[in-house]
Amino acid sequence: MITFDFSGYSTDLIGDKGIALSDIEALAPKTQSAHQTIMEKRLSGEIGFYDLPLGREVAEKVKQTAAEIGHKFKNVVNIGIGGSSLGPKTAFSALKDPLHNLHSEPRMFFPDNVDPEYMHSLLSHINVSETPFLIVSKSGTTAEPAAQFMIVLDLLKKALGNKYKDNLIFVTDPVKGVLRKLARNEGIRTLEIPPEIGGRFSVLTPVGLLPAALCGIDIDELLSGAAAMADIALREDIFENPPYLYGICHYLAMVKGHNISVLMPYANALYDMADWYRQLWAESLGKKNSLDGRSVYTGQTPVKALGATDQHSQVQLDMEGPYDKIINIMTVKNYRNDITMPQVMDDIPEVAYLCGKNMSELINAEAKGTMAALISNQRMTGHIALDTIDARTIGALFMFFEAATAFTGYLLNINPFDQPGVELGKINTFSLMGREGFEDRMQMPAKVAKMSFEI
Amino acid sequence: MITFDFSGYSTDLIGDKGIALSDIEALAPKTQSAHQTIMEKRLSGEIGFYDLPLGREVAEKVKQTAAEIGHKFKNVVNIGIGGSSLGPKTAFSALKDPLHNLHSEPRMFFPDNVDPEYMHSLLSHINVSETPFLIVSKSGTTAEPAAQFMIVLDLLKKALGNKYKDNLIFVTDPVKGVLRKLARNEGIRTLEIPPEIGGRFSVLTPVGLLPAALCGIDIDELLSGAAAMADIALREDIFENPPYLYGICHYLAMVKGHNISVLMPYANALYDMADWYRQLWAESLGKKNSLDGRSVYTGQTPVKALGATDQHSQVQLDMEGPYDKIINIMTVKNYRNDITMPQVMDDIPEVAYLCGKNMSELINAEAKGTMAALISNQRMTGHIALDTIDARTIGALFMFFEAATAFTGYLLNINPFDQPGVELGKINTFSLMGREGFEDRMQMPAKVAKMSFEI
Repeated sequence: MITFDFSGYSTDLIGDKGIALSDIEALAPKTQSAHQTIMEKRLSGEIGFYDLPLGREVAEKVKQTAAEIGHKFKNVVNIGIGGSSLGPKTAFSALKDPLHNLHSEPRMFFPDNVDPEYMHSLLSHINVSETPFLIVSKSGTTAEPAAQFMIVLDLLKKALGNKYKDNLIFVTDPVKGVLRKLARNEGIRTLEIPPEIGGRFSVLTPVGLLPAALCGIDIDELLSGAAAMADIALREDIFENPPYLYGICHYLAMVKGHNISVLMPYANALYDMADWYRQLWAESLGKKNSLDGRSVYTGQTPVKALGATDQHSQVQLDMEGPYDKIINIMTVKNYRNDITMPQVMDDIPEVAYLCGKNMSELINAEAKGTMAALISNQRMTGHIALDTIDARTIGALFMFFEAATAFTGYLLNINPFDQPGVELGKINTFSLMGREGFEDRMQMPAKVAKMSFEI
Repeated sequence: MITFDFSGYSTDLIGDKGIALSDIEALAPKTQSAHQTIMEKRLSGEIGFYDLPLGREVAEKVKQTAAEIGHKFKNVVNIGIGGSSLGPKTAFSALKDPLHNLHSEPRMFFPDNVDPEYMHSLLSHINVSETPFLIVSKSGTTAEPAAQFMIVLDLLKKALGNKYKDNLIFVTDPVKGVLRKLARNEGIRTLEIPPEIGGRFSVLTPVGLLPAALCGIDIDELLSGAAAMADIALREDIFENPPYLYGICHYLAMVKGHNISVLMPYANALYDMADWYRQLWAESLGKKNSLDGRSVYTGQTPVKALGATDQHSQVQLDMEGPYDKIINIMTVKNYRNDITMPQVMDDIPEVAYLCGKNMSELINAEAKGTMAALISNQRMTGHIALDTIDARTIGALFMFFEAATAFTGYLLNINPFDQPGVELGKINTFSLMGREGFEDRMQMPAKVAKMSFEI
């Protein structure tokens, strides 16, 4: 299903810029301890994501909810931000036709941002009566989805009167929060986000599953792929556990000063997977404090890239710039569709070699050629190869990266599941927006006028 | 029109993690020399991008070509990769409605990548007879657009016979190359890419202007904004030249070990601008060799981000991770559309503060709150503020970043206009694809089987 080849990280291939198997072996106490931590926290219920694929009754509930809404709607709008948007959007763009919204229903929208221009356009071009809105927020008080929900609620009530509830589904905490309370009082349909699962690890909860089911993705297969990967990801022996190997190699790269992790799929359908990974890796590992309370300022910046496109933008830097990156190329053996370059221009030597070949051969040759070139330039380059893109492999990839992230977090001795660094910005925003109790909380240094320039 | 505030880089605001005005002044010989180089190369015709906005006869030719095609087509497909796609796509997404392709014609497609699934979908869902294809390639031999062009040419000939030419426009070298030759022989409509302009600096040539004109963007305004910025960008006094200031501050950040440049617009419409910048900055500055032939392995990795969305993904890392980034937030004072949060849920204290506010107030408060928080955490944070997003500001931004990039390249003493590092990957690809003369050119180290894992 998936092959992870990390020989391109190794000293055997890239010399002293690489890592040796002995480097991994030397960290045995650290890796065993990280594994132990994961096992304990999984048992105590603090880490829940490994066991989400087993929640078949959740999947049934999701399918039932999706079936109730059935085919009566033209659009689905997912109101959520961060993981509540990236997760479902990743599954959608990986598993549905790239031009889905131009020719099929329900059209799927993930507005995510509180962009006034985008929201105005969206609400001008859909009929809210024909649209269920999924409101995805544990607390219901996150500013962005709360703002969007208010607007939508008002529009639905105006359009549908008392029947507005038919077009709302809350995906929220089972007990607490504003949305849960509202759902109880008004009788609005809900699905649950398990309290122990953070936003960036929520794609295999109803957060990801409901939008997937609504656009016809086989969520049983998604979960089944994730379950298969979870079995592997829980193995103690690091050399039998590819997510752990991914993690330890990235840890070793960080120790060598490689502060950038590039994920570069050679498939448009996987570009949002790289975007989802960006949140997972950045927010989980970017931490000021270690678990024992020291200031460590750790983290590795994830960069999403797209092959072959970014051979014409970023690869120049990857090849010749600082040795500051660990790069992972993702390839697809069997694309779901293909197209042949016909026998035209076969009299022009510079392009004749393309005639009669399939486009999949070209993009795969570009991936292979680029990997080989990166390795020749002593750049740490891994390869994640998929047989094909389907619900099963996508589910497996979600679990692969989540397990790798958790493990790397514990290798770094930080908490991969919190995000304390975003509080200050939130407080500032509340203060600027005049939220009660936050009036004087804004921390803003006085600006130095001299260093500002108007054009 | 645009304000560039770089006080958030300064020691006054962020202490010893910042830079002082005296750091900039101390580099006077270096900055004067870089300015001198730019002036000389501009005069000798080696650097052409500053003068593109003055090419009004080119703009007339573009408008005439667009008018000839007029409104008779339902779609426009732009076949090009790298700058030949990023440039026009950036103008399109900045200046047209975010859901343009769902409700307006001509629908604009920028396939860019040679993704078999995307190309298959695109060609299944458009009628080629109703579609002009812009084939954008200087040489005509770049593998990706050449492959796509072959497929399109075949389809057009089958659908339209001898009239296939009506649906083709070549944007290519004025004299050389496969497309120029074909255009001459077959009588196909063409526009010219000036030979001295590289792909990533080509957005103000017909590469960017023709797609813009075809979807109704005012290209005179685009050029006029760029011309206004070019006047500023050519000033000798660095303190009167914001692109130079942007460049020198990034240079100083690199010297301090900040190897990442984050561009984070708080506007969906500007997200592709950050993507375009990514190519410009990465490919121009990522260089192994200095101009005097030393191995320098220089470069700074650009990262695109989107506010407020990425407050929920990347900002945790920006706030608490390593001090390895210089961040620039872009904001918009007056959005082209807005939307008000109605007086619903005003009895719920946690969200009541949103009621009656505009979404633009929320996103601007988030931008300001995040900037202040980054600065409080001693992170180098600049601010590029636009009054509004229109053709004039977009043109100005293109010029701003191009000038900043050229200047930074010369500060680093490298050539910002070449891309030698991508040759090896191309040669490998040719070899794998069986191109004549490249049979034995593949450089591929033997894989270490032990470090590969199948799932």
